[in-house]
Amino acid sequence: MKQPGTERTPSRTRNVPFREKSELSPADPTGPRFRIEDIYPCVDCGQYPVKRICGDSVEVWADIFREGHDTIDAALLWRLETETAWRREPMLLHGNNRWHGCFTPSEPGSYLFAIETWTDEFATWRKELLLKQQNGQDISLDAREGRDLLSELMPREDRARLAVKTAIGNFDTTNDARALLGDELLTAMACIDNRPDLSRSRAIPLVAERERARCGAWYEMVPRSQSSVPGRHGTFDDCIGRVPDIAALGFDVLYLTPIHPIGHTNRKGRNNSLNLTSDDPGSFYAIGNEFGGHDAVHPELGTLDNFRRLVATCREHDMEIALDFAVQCSPDHPWVKQHPEWFRFRPNGTIRFAENPPKKYEDIVNPDFTCADRIALWEALRNVILFWCEQGVRIFRVDNPHTKPFPFWEWLIAETRRVHPDVIFLSEAFTRPKIMKALAKIGFSQSYTYFTWRTQKHELQEYLSEITGHPERDYFRPNFFVTTPDILPLQLQSGEPWMFKSRAALAATLSSNYGIYNGFELIEHEPIPGREEYLNSEKYEIRTRDWDKPGNIKGYIRQLNMARRKNAALRQTSNLRFLTVDDDNVIGFIKESADGTNAIAAAIALTGSPHEFWLHFGDALIGPDGARQPVRSVKNLSTGERRQIEWNGVRLRIDPAGDPAHLFQCYA
Amino acid sequence: MKQPGTERTPSRTRNVPFREKSELSPADPTGPRFRIEDIYPCVDCGQYPVKRICGDSVEVWADIFREGHDTIDAALLWRLETETAWRREPMLLHGNNRWHGCFTPSEPGSYLFAIETWTDEFATWRKELLLKQQNGQDISLDAREGRDLLSELMPREDRARLAVKTAIGNFDTTNDARALLGDELLTAMACIDNRPDLSRSRAIPLVAERERARCGAWYEMVPRSQSSVPGRHGTFDDCIGRVPDIAALGFDVLYLTPIHPIGHTNRKGRNNSLNLTSDDPGSFYAIGNEFGGHDAVHPELGTLDNFRRLVATCREHDMEIALDFAVQCSPDHPWVKQHPEWFRFRPNGTIRFAENPPKKYEDIVNPDFTCADRIALWEALRNVILFWCEQGVRIFRVDNPHTKPFPFWEWLIAETRRVHPDVIFLSEAFTRPKIMKALAKIGFSQSYTYFTWRTQKHELQEYLSEITGHPERDYFRPNFFVTTPDILPLQLQSGEPWMFKSRAALAATLSSNYGIYNGFELIEHEPIPGREEYLNSEKYEIRTRDWDKPGNIKGYIRQLNMARRKNAALRQTSNLRFLTVDDDNVIGFIKESADGTNAIAAAIALTGSPHEFWLHFGDALIGPDGARQPVRSVKNLSTGERRQIEWNGVRLRIDPAGDPAHLFQCYA
Repeated sequence: MKQPGTERTPSRTRNVPFREKSELSPADPTGPRFRIEDIYPCVDCGQYPVKRICGDSVEVWADIFREGHDTIDAALLWRLETETAWRREPMLLHGNNRWHGCFTPSEPGSYLFAIETWTDEFATWRKELLLKQQNGQDISLDAREGRDLLSELMPREDRARLAVKTAIGNFDTTNDARALLGDELLTAMACIDNRPDLSRSRAIPLVAERERARCGAWYEMVPRSQSSVPGRHGTFDDCIGRVPDIAALGFDVLYLTPIHPIGHTNRKGRNNSLNLTSDDPGSFYAIGNEFGGHDAVHPELGTLDNFRRLVATCREHDMEIALDFAVQCSPDHPWVKQHPEWFRFRPNGTIRFAENPPKKYEDIVNPDFTCADRIALWEALRNVILFWCEQGVRIFRVDNPHTKPFPFWEWLIAETRRVHPDVIFLSEAFTRPKIMKALAKIGFSQSYTYFTWRTQKHELQEYLSEITGHPERDYFRPNFFVTTPDILPLQLQSGEPWMFKSRAALAATLSSNYGIYNGFELIEHEPIPGREEYLNSEKYEIRTRDWDKPGNIKGYIRQLNMARRKNAALRQTSNLRFLTVDDDNVIGFIKESADGTNAIAAAIALTGSPHEFWLHFGDALIGPDGARQPVRSVKNLSTGERRQIEWNGVRLRIDPAGDPAHLFQCYA
Repeated sequence: MKQPGTERTPSRTRNVPFREKSELSPADPTGPRFRIEDIYPCVDCGQYPVKRICGDSVEVWADIFREGHDTIDAALLWRLETETAWRREPMLLHGNNRWHGCFTPSEPGSYLFAIETWTDEFATWRKELLLKQQNGQDISLDAREGRDLLSELMPREDRARLAVKTAIGNFDTTNDARALLGDELLTAMACIDNRPDLSRSRAIPLVAERERARCGAWYEMVPRSQSSVPGRHGTFDDCIGRVPDIAALGFDVLYLTPIHPIGHTNRKGRNNSLNLTSDDPGSFYAIGNEFGGHDAVHPELGTLDNFRRLVATCREHDMEIALDFAVQCSPDHPWVKQHPEWFRFRPNGTIRFAENPPKKYEDIVNPDFTCADRIALWEALRNVILFWCEQGVRIFRVDNPHTKPFPFWEWLIAETRRVHPDVIFLSEAFTRPKIMKALAKIGFSQSYTYFTWRTQKHELQEYLSEITGHPERDYFRPNFFVTTPDILPLQLQSGEPWMFKSRAALAATLSSNYGIYNGFELIEHEPIPGREEYLNSEKYEIRTRDWDKPGNIKGYIRQLNMARRKNAALRQTSNLRFLTVDDDNVIGFIKESADGTNAIAAAIALTGSPHEFWLHFGDALIGPDGARQPVRSVKNLSTGERRQIEWNGVRLRIDPAGDPAHLFQCYA
């Protein structure tokens, strides 16, 4: 039946195709009708991937709108970068043009997500018709238009098609608008293919890593110092012997300083001295000699087989090995002979040693990342990583990445993850903040931080607020080390056990990734006078220790690690709020798991005298979305003592001589 | 003389070319060495142009860094989009890897700017050599390397080349490093062409407009109401007669409601009634009849010649005309017959009137911006703008842009500016915030705002903080209207003169663009009961007024406009800080010109009773960069009274019955 006047209806061109600005032409300047703005999460306009953990829901937000008052709809698209087909999730309007949707990547890898939006013409028609009807206006023409719209947009899917055809049939028989207003039609029309004005945002990259990238307690160990016999060079077998004890302390990652053959040329003596005695083992950062380079093990440590056994033993104890990836070479490294073009030579024909004037590093040479043969060099370094991956290693702590070109790391990490998407890289860059952040953006899973030197309450609060805030929280994962072989910070040099405990507690609870360097648990604290470095550093000599030396704080560290294992709130970093404490030498905070089922409050003393103070919870709410409540009571994780919240807080006493850190389970 | 060992020096490939990520290949993954991040100003990652005023310095900031410790340098490049060659300005390190540079676009137009950065190998060499020398290290090899570097990087420019050759000659003769350390060499090496590691940021778009885009006092006038004879239809000649008086009040822009022929079909009667009497003139927003459409003038107003004379008269009085661009058509518009395909028809053959259910606009029809023939429609609308440009108009106030597709406006504004870069567009979108902001991003020079409904101190402070903050300040220029033909806000409905003055003072001093609608100066205030609309609105009838009616506040408005003309601080909006006032019904703020030579403080009463209060200057500093000082005294702009600042503030008394707004010149 021909409708009067329809011959004048111009053919409708609803599907203004999505086009980028650069594709517009004077002949047809019609760009996308929709704006999709302020997409969250997104790092540097999508230049770098957002970081997330697989299994966690990725919450996506965006402002989505077009002109006018039409009803619109939107969907969240996502896929692995290597896939071609998008998966789709619904998006819902949250309010004020802001929409929300989520997806959960299940395996580690590089993902993309994007947002699609379109005009829902049928819903628009329905909304307007109902408004007119409520207002008593004549809707007969509108009903006819709805019928034509249904017929024009006809879904392809069988059930939906049937529902629409039935409705049209009913309307044609009865001429009653009610035939077009059933809920089944809304459902049917939600799945049409020719979505009017379809616009798509650009794709935002996201890297999903395994949970260890977000959370791990690291134990840094110098393998050659693990022998129990004074003076004997430690071996991988000695390390294997140490694994059960370290695992029992609750550590997740056993991080080994470099295990490769050590150079002879300009080998450093004790305390970084240039005067060598014949039995000095040299710095393990001077990598490479006649026994091999980065893909070899130092013969005195054992064989590759021994190493693989260490890897396996760790796995049996729910730990894993992290290796140290230090690019520099000893002048005796095989590459220096095999690929002299990878290094720089001076006008007198000598190789150029590493230096940062006026400092000199005579026992190492740096490859030239921009040399003519750089591609071969980059590939050789990548092959080192892949070699260790084949030995079962999946975590690399990278030494001084900030002195090598950013594009190298971006490429190396991507190349590694193409083969092994579960590899974790930790950036050991102690440098200016923007450079540390840039390394995180280009792919490092975790980063060393300034924590080691942040001791005052306001410093800690400011620094944590920065790295857990936006945009840092989406790409920068801190790993708080209390000490490293290079750094014995001032606050630990007096060797007060309460301070060692306080620093361990701060690191273990403020950051879900934290680490100690072997000897910390024994309160080792003797510095080179006037410097923040260890005297008799085992970087230059072999140490033998009694790992159960009286006065050790292993029990305390074990307790911290167990609290972390039991409480998801402590296994993440970003969800952190500082609490008010009426004592400037006590820091208070609350952390909560993403699902809101676990909340831990902490009060940690920063000075050694006893403290009595109020811990105020302010307006902090806990619990799952939609059911968030104030904290009503807390239970001390060590003592089990339960306290009611009064006046919005709790009065506490900390005697750091006993335990400088009180941790509480929070109840709503 | 051949150097020993140089045969082993690999050929250096310093100039890793700048490549986009998409250009990297497995064969050579070497991307740009530098990071150029957080470029300011930049709107939505450079998707939309930054807005600036020509003649003003554009201050550009960016984080610039590469790996390692080498000395780097950077330059700011800029050009008109239509030019091919970049102009260059120096950039300087401000600190913490943040660099700064500036450029000044001199003419209105679309510009691009970008940042280039490179490694300064010679400066790096020099810095390291000096450090080693200070440390007593042997520098003979380093000196030789510096000599070779100079020879390799040899500048092309004659004077620089001579300086370098002389230095090399001196060194070769004396073997003394001092020959390579002269300042003239640093200068010479600053201009080399083969800049190592040269990286360039992407280009950021920027639109420079003329000053009127940033600052103007608008007088909105209904031309047909300008006759001095009651009942007679006003003409362009009547408008011309009004110009000297309006110009004397200090207005910059004379904005006319639509001047086009008015439709007959469904013409609206008084107060938007559907019952028409034969002499009702109809709404001037129902555009088009047998006398023409958007490029015609309503015959009762006069001829196009009369209009052009009005344009010229304004120009003689340092004012300019703004026209109202309202896309909708009366059903009698010539386009409806000539291009029925531009409109939508209903199943019964009738044209689809505008509606926003349940509201109906029976006297207008909207063209369909997505119709099959849309390109012709868009071009016809563009030609309307160009037609009025040819009549001397350079400002368009656009009616309801938020109900037309964004790509249309983006295209229309760009198309217009391609021919007339000095055209200003004001967006009259009273809708949700993100849509208003999106219209500003895609090109509107100025925007209507929520000011009309912001009456409380905290509301005004929040709203101003939002639109003068980041990122809004870089693309959103407010124009504060106290009233419009559509809006008589509640606070003005009691007709208290102090409130009219207070609102005018707020608009004129908080925003550098502001406007009043004719009748405001006469305290017109009669609403449709219960609504924020004028009773007997001249949208539907002709009004005749005594423009010098007793009780008018023309003198007050003149005084405000003169204060704006004399004080650059009031001719900009972003440079605004709120001051503390110990009275919640008085708002205080300070504004300062970009060069720091003019600072104005204001205290404005928001309620009608007398107020005594402290205006606190807090830590506000004024004056040029590098010489900023606290405010030490203030001078009342009306009374000339000078007051010293005591206890960081000044005690004031405002009696709104006299003047609700006190403005002060500030002195350091």
